[in-house]
Amino acid sequence: MTMKIIAFGEVMMRMMPPNYKKLSQVDTLEFLYTGTGVNVLSGLYQMGHEVYLTTRLPDNIVGQAASAHIRKLGIHDDYVCYGTNHIGIYFLEQGIGNRASQITYLNRLDSSFGKSQISDYDFSCLDGMDALHICGISLALRENLREVAFAFAKEAKKRHIKVIFDCNFRPSLWTGEHDEIKHIYEEMLNLADIVFAGYKDATLLLHKQVDQSLPYDKQLRNILMQMCQDYHIEFIFGTIRKDEELTGYMVTSTKMVMSPKMRLTVFDRVGGGDGFAAGAIDGYLTHMEPQELIHYATASGVLAHTTYGDSPVVSKEEIIDFMKNGKRDIKR
Amino acid sequence: MTMKIIAFGEVMMRMMPPNYKKLSQVDTLEFLYTGTGVNVLSGLYQMGHEVYLTTRLPDNIVGQAASAHIRKLGIHDDYVCYGTNHIGIYFLEQGIGNRASQITYLNRLDSSFGKSQISDYDFSCLDGMDALHICGISLALRENLREVAFAFAKEAKKRHIKVIFDCNFRPSLWTGEHDEIKHIYEEMLNLADIVFAGYKDATLLLHKQVDQSLPYDKQLRNILMQMCQDYHIEFIFGTIRKDEELTGYMVTSTKMVMSPKMRLTVFDRVGGGDGFAAGAIDGYLTHMEPQELIHYATASGVLAHTTYGDSPVVSKEEIIDFMKNGKRDIKR
Amino acid sequence: MTMKIIAFGEVMMRMMPPNYKKLSQVDTLEFLYTGTGVNVLSGLYQMGHEVYLTTRLPDNIVGQAASAHIRKLGIHDDYVCYGTNHIGIYFLEQGIGNRASQITYLNRLDSSFGKSQISDYDFSCLDGMDALHICGISLALRENLREVAFAFAKEAKKRHIKVIFDCNFRPSLWTGEHDEIKHIYEEMLNLADIVFAGYKDATLLLHKQVDQSLPYDKQLRNILMQMCQDYHIEFIFGTIRKDEELTGYMVTSTKMVMSPKMRLTVFDRVGGGDGFAAGAIDGYLTHMEPQELIHYATASGVLAHTTYGDSPVVSKEEIIDFMKNGKRDIKR
Amino acid sequence: MTMKIIAFGEVMMRMMPPNYKKLSQVDTLEFLYTGTGVNVLSGLYQMGHEVYLTTRLPDNIVGQAASAHIRKLGIHDDYVCYGTNHIGIYFLEQGIGNRASQITYLNRLDSSFGKSQISDYDFSCLDGMDALHICGISLALRENLREVAFAFAKEAKKRHIKVIFDCNFRPSLWTGEHDEIKHIYEEMLNLADIVFAGYKDATLLLHKQVDQSLPYDKQLRNILMQMCQDYHIEFIFGTIRKDEELTGYMVTSTKMVMSPKMRLTVFDRVGGGDGFAAGAIDGYLTHMEPQELIHYATASGVLAHTTYGDSPVVSKEEIIDFMKNGKRDIKR
Amino acid sequence: MTMKIIAFGEVMMRMMPPNYKKLSQVDTLEFLYTGTGVNVLSGLYQMGHEVYLTTRLPDNIVGQAASAHIRKLGIHDDYVCYGTNHIGIYFLEQGIGNRASQITYLNRLDSSFGKSQISDYDFSCLDGMDALHICGISLALRENLREVAFAFAKEAKKRHIKVIFDCNFRPSLWTGEHDEIKHIYEEMLNLADIVFAGYKDATLLLHKQVDQSLPYDKQLRNILMQMCQDYHIEFIFGTIRKDEELTGYMVTSTKMVMSPKMRLTVFDRVGGGDGFAAGAIDGYLTHMEPQELIHYATASGVLAHTTYGDSPVVSKEEIIDFMKNGKRDIKR
Amino acid sequence: MTMKIIAFGEVMMRMMPPNYKKLSQVDTLEFLYTGTGVNVLSGLYQMGHEVYLTTRLPDNIVGQAASAHIRKLGIHDDYVCYGTNHIGIYFLEQGIGNRASQITYLNRLDSSFGKSQISDYDFSCLDGMDALHICGISLALRENLREVAFAFAKEAKKRHIKVIFDCNFRPSLWTGEHDEIKHIYEEMLNLADIVFAGYKDATLLLHKQVDQSLPYDKQLRNILMQMCQDYHIEFIFGTIRKDEELTGYMVTSTKMVMSPKMRLTVFDRVGGGDGFAAGAIDGYLTHMEPQELIHYATASGVLAHTTYGDSPVVSKEEIIDFMKNGKRDIKR
Repeated sequence: MTMKIIAFGEVMMRMMPPNYKKLSQVDTLEFLYTGTGVNVLSGLYQMGHEVYLTTRLPDNIVGQAASAHIRKLGIHDDYVCYGTNHIGIYFLEQGIGNRASQITYLNRLDSSFGKSQISDYDFSCLDGMDALHICGISLALRENLREVAFAFAKEAKKRHIKVIFDCNFRPSLWTGEHDEIKHIYEEMLNLADIVFAGYKDATLLLHKQVDQSLPYDKQLRNILMQMCQDYHIEFIFGTIRKDEELTGYMVTSTKMVMSPKMRLTVFDRVGGGDGFAAGAIDGYLTHMEPQELIHYATASGVLAHTTYGDSPVVSKEEIIDFMKNGKRDIKR
Repeated sequence: MTMKIIAFGEVMMRMMPPNYKKLSQVDTLEFLYTGTGVNVLSGLYQMGHEVYLTTRLPDNIVGQAASAHIRKLGIHDDYVCYGTNHIGIYFLEQGIGNRASQITYLNRLDSSFGKSQISDYDFSCLDGMDALHICGISLALRENLREVAFAFAKEAKKRHIKVIFDCNFRPSLWTGEHDEIKHIYEEMLNLADIVFAGYKDATLLLHKQVDQSLPYDKQLRNILMQMCQDYHIEFIFGTIRKDEELTGYMVTSTKMVMSPKMRLTVFDRVGGGDGFAAGAIDGYLTHMEPQELIHYATASGVLAHTTYGDSPVVSKEEIIDFMKNGKRDIKR
Repeated sequence: MTMKIIAFGEVMMRMMPPNYKKLSQVDTLEFLYTGTGVNVLSGLYQMGHEVYLTTRLPDNIVGQAASAHIRKLGIHDDYVCYGTNHIGIYFLEQGIGNRASQITYLNRLDSSFGKSQISDYDFSCLDGMDALHICGISLALRENLREVAFAFAKEAKKRHIKVIFDCNFRPSLWTGEHDEIKHIYEEMLNLADIVFAGYKDATLLLHKQVDQSLPYDKQLRNILMQMCQDYHIEFIFGTIRKDEELTGYMVTSTKMVMSPKMRLTVFDRVGGGDGFAAGAIDGYLTHMEPQELIHYATASGVLAHTTYGDSPVVSKEEIIDFMKNGKRDIKR
Repeated sequence: MTMKIIAFGEVMMRMMPPNYKKLSQVDTLEFLYTGTGVNVLSGLYQMGHEVYLTTRLPDNIVGQAASAHIRKLGIHDDYVCYGTNHIGIYFLEQGIGNRASQITYLNRLDSSFGKSQISDYDFSCLDGMDALHICGISLALRENLREVAFAFAKEAKKRHIKVIFDCNFRPSLWTGEHDEIKHIYEEMLNLADIVFAGYKDATLLLHKQVDQSLPYDKQLRNILMQMCQDYHIEFIFGTIRKDEELTGYMVTSTKMVMSPKMRLTVFDRVGGGDGFAAGAIDGYLTHMEPQELIHYATASGVLAHTTYGDSPVVSKEEIIDFMKNGKRDIKR
Repeated sequence: MTMKIIAFGEVMMRMMPPNYKKLSQVDTLEFLYTGTGVNVLSGLYQMGHEVYLTTRLPDNIVGQAASAHIRKLGIHDDYVCYGTNHIGIYFLEQGIGNRASQITYLNRLDSSFGKSQISDYDFSCLDGMDALHICGISLALRENLREVAFAFAKEAKKRHIKVIFDCNFRPSLWTGEHDEIKHIYEEMLNLADIVFAGYKDATLLLHKQVDQSLPYDKQLRNILMQMCQDYHIEFIFGTIRKDEELTGYMVTSTKMVMSPKMRLTVFDRVGGGDGFAAGAIDGYLTHMEPQELIHYATASGVLAHTTYGDSPVVSKEEIIDFMKNGKRDIKR
Repeated sequence: MTMKIIAFGEVMMRMMPPNYKKLSQVDTLEFLYTGTGVNVLSGLYQMGHEVYLTTRLPDNIVGQAASAHIRKLGIHDDYVCYGTNHIGIYFLEQGIGNRASQITYLNRLDSSFGKSQISDYDFSCLDGMDALHICGISLALRENLREVAFAFAKEAKKRHIKVIFDCNFRPSLWTGEHDEIKHIYEEMLNLADIVFAGYKDATLLLHKQVDQSLPYDKQLRNILMQMCQDYHIEFIFGTIRKDEELTGYMVTSTKMVMSPKMRLTVFDRVGGGDGFAAGAIDGYLTHMEPQELIHYATASGVLAHTTYGDSPVVSKEEIIDFMKNGKRDIKR
């Protein structure tokens, strides 16, 4: 069952000193192109879907190389537009053992994407799609982007396309009043069918009340069920990361289903969440049973921590093999 | 005590994306030449023996580079012949953490080795040798190879050279009737002095009966002792890999000796078994005491998991140091 | 003016020791996926066209990585099919100065492509295309492939799609009788609108007679004009490579147009001819004037010698800038 | 004779695909930190001087790595300040043979340097210096930078420090009226003792009139002598690059001295001019004879084309050896 | 509070096969310049101090590259002198898992440093310094070096500069009588204010008596307190490394303070002790509270095991973050 | 016609910054093992001979890796002995264009080879050999080595083995009186059958008189013929390198034969002379005709400049193809 999914989102350049070195210790960088949308689509391609990205890239070799990179990941670049000359860049100093990974951003606001506006996009790209993915970062960066994001969501609604929204709330990116931010998020949640969110999104961002004397799981279930009810959300997905274990959950207005706790082994941390998201979306679009779905999505998230880069590149077969057989030595 | 050992076996090219990446993520490959015979001989060279490979390689730069590579490992290439233009290749996507390593073979049957026949080899290369090593893969690939393998075993017998046979039974490589395969193996086992074999070889391949209500160790001992008796084998060696621990065993027609359980740490999985085999053969040829022998062989196998490549490259001193002192930090 | 071009052709893996080293001097290889069709399409993508490859690739990670690679080059993989597990591989030892580059092939006949047949392909992929590209190598490798090639050419004819045929006659690949080979080529030439051919194709392969007392240029013109007439070919394109200079020509049944002689500088030799072909096809499809067309195609060929890999990756702008301004130092 | 030279100027990051590849062909980049000031100081360090850079760098690991890099080049970072989080970046696709090198800039205006202002700098850093170097790029980028540049020049004048100004006029960087730009340059030229300038600076930028019927050399001499007179410049230095040869010149208000024509071989084009500048400044500060000085500076420029990176790294000994002995094979 | 620290010590070249390979498996080496002094100063630079090395380096490109390398680490090279042409080199075969790292030294005695003598150094470099660091290796290598080390210590004493002495007793480096060695060490200890020493230094080297029936901690406290009293040492610092945990201690003539046990994760083992030393010296010079100081120093040591190279390159902020928050996933 | 050749000579480590960078610009080095004997034997292996090296290497991993490296080149290591721990190292900064290559030696005198003496070698290794190669460097380094060299030459003489001596006179390596040096060389020349020598060896070293009014070729012929007569040398070989062209010569006591002038293209300069030597020795041992021999040897020398490393790795087929067809583009 092949579905068509389109994402509206930023493409950034990730630059990493090789071999766990610090930036001042190297004179080469490994780079790739990334972004929440890119990552989720990459995962969905591995799962057999037809995937499209719509974004604005620099009108130069950096933008062309970005397109080539995402095509290689299996993403169609038909709806990418080009303009101006800047792209967001982040440096990743990969940690190991006791040393944490560190991410340092260069100017992200003035990128071709950051400065793009409604007139840059052709909404007919939504025709024939089954789902649209939007990331909360687009709401945060600049007002013009926020307008584009809402325009996409509304155009999708018109066409009865499922709207998938990943909250991805990062306070550091926001400059406005909290009430205004909450309002913006609520507007988007009202448009969304599927949402990726967690405890902090519900409490810190949306101010959902919760009885803190309850166990954590119960609290989480209550506030996310509340969110589903308040904004008419079909499903909320998310993960709990604790003690080097990952547990996925899936919430509707009436219940919560949780995956088994799965042991995490981290090779490349960034993009792990997007691996989970790809699995959840695939499971949703192909109508998996709830328990299987959330197990599968969590397995996808766990394996996304074991591959180089932010974009999931494990195949559906590998995920299913891992769900069934756990960690294996070698396959011939 | 330097012995002379010759192996008849395939040389393949192993190609690996660097840094745990997937093939589609790279544009360079690390490569080396490998094969059960190559690996066992490489280990035996490190232990002080004089080692020779007899095989057929492509008659082009790929074959010449293979010879150069095995010479670097310490293996004499005097008895390598050349012809046709193909070599077996496998791609290794190295796994990490929860992600398994994956091996993908290209055409192996039509290699220079796969198509070689008795007339390509000069059996006088056996003169003066102390032992001959043959791998079960040669029995599986093609009938012409099987003929060569038997010819070598019989010529060795004539010269009172010890015949070492590694079962290495891989059902996927065999296309014939099971009875026929069993018969072929039994013929080879009757020629062999030293055999590498395990539970599955005895039960699935050779149909040895065992009382499954016994503990695993007992079962193993019984069927392997049975094998020794049935085929007049001097020693059977093998390992049990469980819960990231390795235990070696050594069986005669009357008893079984086991190594201590040794904790495994895996850096490069492929060829670990060949490291054990090299240790066992060295121990056998240099007349170590059984308990020391099997401990030493297992230590050799454990350390073979910690070096790059399929071919063991740790020195005898390192193995003995590890047997005595366990894992150490740094040696100056 | 964007056209749609599809090529039927082989994808091979090219493996190259880095930095002009010999195979026996390295333990890493730079690799990429290549083939006449791949290369021509890659060039046409850079010139603004929509390009498709139809072929059969191995049904494993090697085939998937091949698809990812050609997508990165801008080629659609919608019409690629998968089956069996082998791919043609060649090793390129890149020469420098007085030392020639050397190419060594491994088994090419038994590749997924080599063994593919008509039932593996869906000819509806031709619907809506403007041109089909076929390479003479497909005629040479195996009979089953030859059948596929002719089927494609005939299906294209039916749909009034231009058939582009690159003779690429390599005697070493052919095993049959010369008359039979000539006959096969003639059959294909009768189907073709645009042909890439040179002096040797006309004389050695097709036995065209020529007055050898004439200057080389005249001889060439006469036999190629003859070819155009004999097989109803619209245009024949080709190049003369002499004294480190390249001259392109374009021949119809009535005349020959030649480019200026352009100085060659060689960084990566393989695929230079495909760069010329891409330029010629672009010029033809976009109706350039003859003199401009052949100058442009030759400039494209010249620049294709200056980039890594077999597949042209210089942009149309770079080619035009080079035609106008010649060799330049640096562009900001 | 060790002098103390300080430069005020931008530090950029240069990112280059290795091995002459295009950006879309690679996943690693070689990078370094560069800038006219950095390059000139690097050259002067090799010639035995004590050199300082004053600039503003990002207040993060990118800025720290920049400081570490310039320290490695021998430049003191005592007067570097830190603030905001962006740095100018350019991508260099290195050309070869017929293919030109291409430089692509990302956002340069909003860098930490681009947004720095007078209050970020401590002019006491000029105390005890012998010379100050300023590059015309600082005049072009933004008004705030222009203010800093003039403040540095005036503070240097007060302290009787030689002011060295490199015109480096790039029309594409300027957005204002031409008259205003001319005026700004003239103001700086009036402050400068030593100037790097050429034909276009004098005619296009400063509108110097010249009798175009004269030979090029004469024209050049006349307009540069005129510049020296008009702005009270001690020396103007520059080079003529033609037919893969480099000729240096040195002009006062009364005469012009030219170097021999020196054959250029280009390995890394960018920064060649800065190698010449370093040589000229060293010659000037150490009171070389005019003819020797301009030969030495040109040799320095020529050798700067043969090393990796924009910053000259050949030693004074190598330059002098090259002046005397020309191109040599090998030195032991 | 920025202090000025100078170290007198050897600079060696460290050469390492990449990716955990053995020397015979590679044809490239990663190299860097290292030494106890270099490493301690590198750590102190990260903590905000002004640091200087005084040593003798080869008078050729190897020495110049060494200076460039240490400047990059933040160390001033003003007091480095140059002479003769040799440098100490060690090869590090990095172990992994069960395989130990192995260090192999080439000729170290005949290096430019090893052969340097008092007349090579200018003791005025001590003027204005707050502390001098000396390593026990300098006492061991050669008599001439020992003389330089004592001259530095005495000159520092004269100027009331704190003398920091790292015992670093390696029996294999010493050739003389034990009594003489003991005497030399005692002479240096009498000059030292701060000492890095452990159980073996006190017992094997200095023959301190201890009641072995006491627990290890008590024994250690008693003999180190005894050392403080005997040689009038202000503080002795050191670590206990056991069961993959590190515990730091700090001893005066009257008490011992211990850090919490901190779990070790080893990425690059060499230089871990120097990371501890840098932390301890920083804590001492900036008057941290004892408990905080030893915790901080141990955290610094623990993190020094997680970065490439012998020289600590983690920032003070990272150390403090690790002390407070422990191991973290990712920091943005 | 396979001959057996043994060389007595030094093995050094060559370390080179990759990609034409300077040492201070890199943190990795490409390394290999080299030496005149190694290089000549490597060339002779490619020409089909059985080759052996006798030398002393460090008794550690550096020595073992050296053995592995030379085995890879095709050289037997049966007669290598091991002792002490040092090896000669040189750094090669490879030049390009106008910039010369620079070689910097570290301590070479105290290497395992440099300190080896007669008792370290077993002269029975000469039994059955056809030729012995000795290099003048062994005469220069130390007296003990000189003794070994003479012992080898005399033992070879006894066995009627051809003695090949490469003068390789480098004044900088010698410390003694000139007369003594001349005497030592003359003693060796009296033992030698085949000698590699040139103009400077004859005039500066051996003080042969020559009529300087003659053309250079004539002078050269006269003094080398004189040498042949004076020391009873069968053949003297050498090359003239001028204007990027190489000409080989071969002299007996009665005549001189010269090769055609061959254009040089330099990729890796070091070891070019050893490529010529290998060709000359092969030609001599296989009884080529003089004119063919010297052409072949010169072609071998020319091609040795086009491969990475000091040791020739082009095959005999490539040399012959180059002799016949000159520079070629590509070979399939």
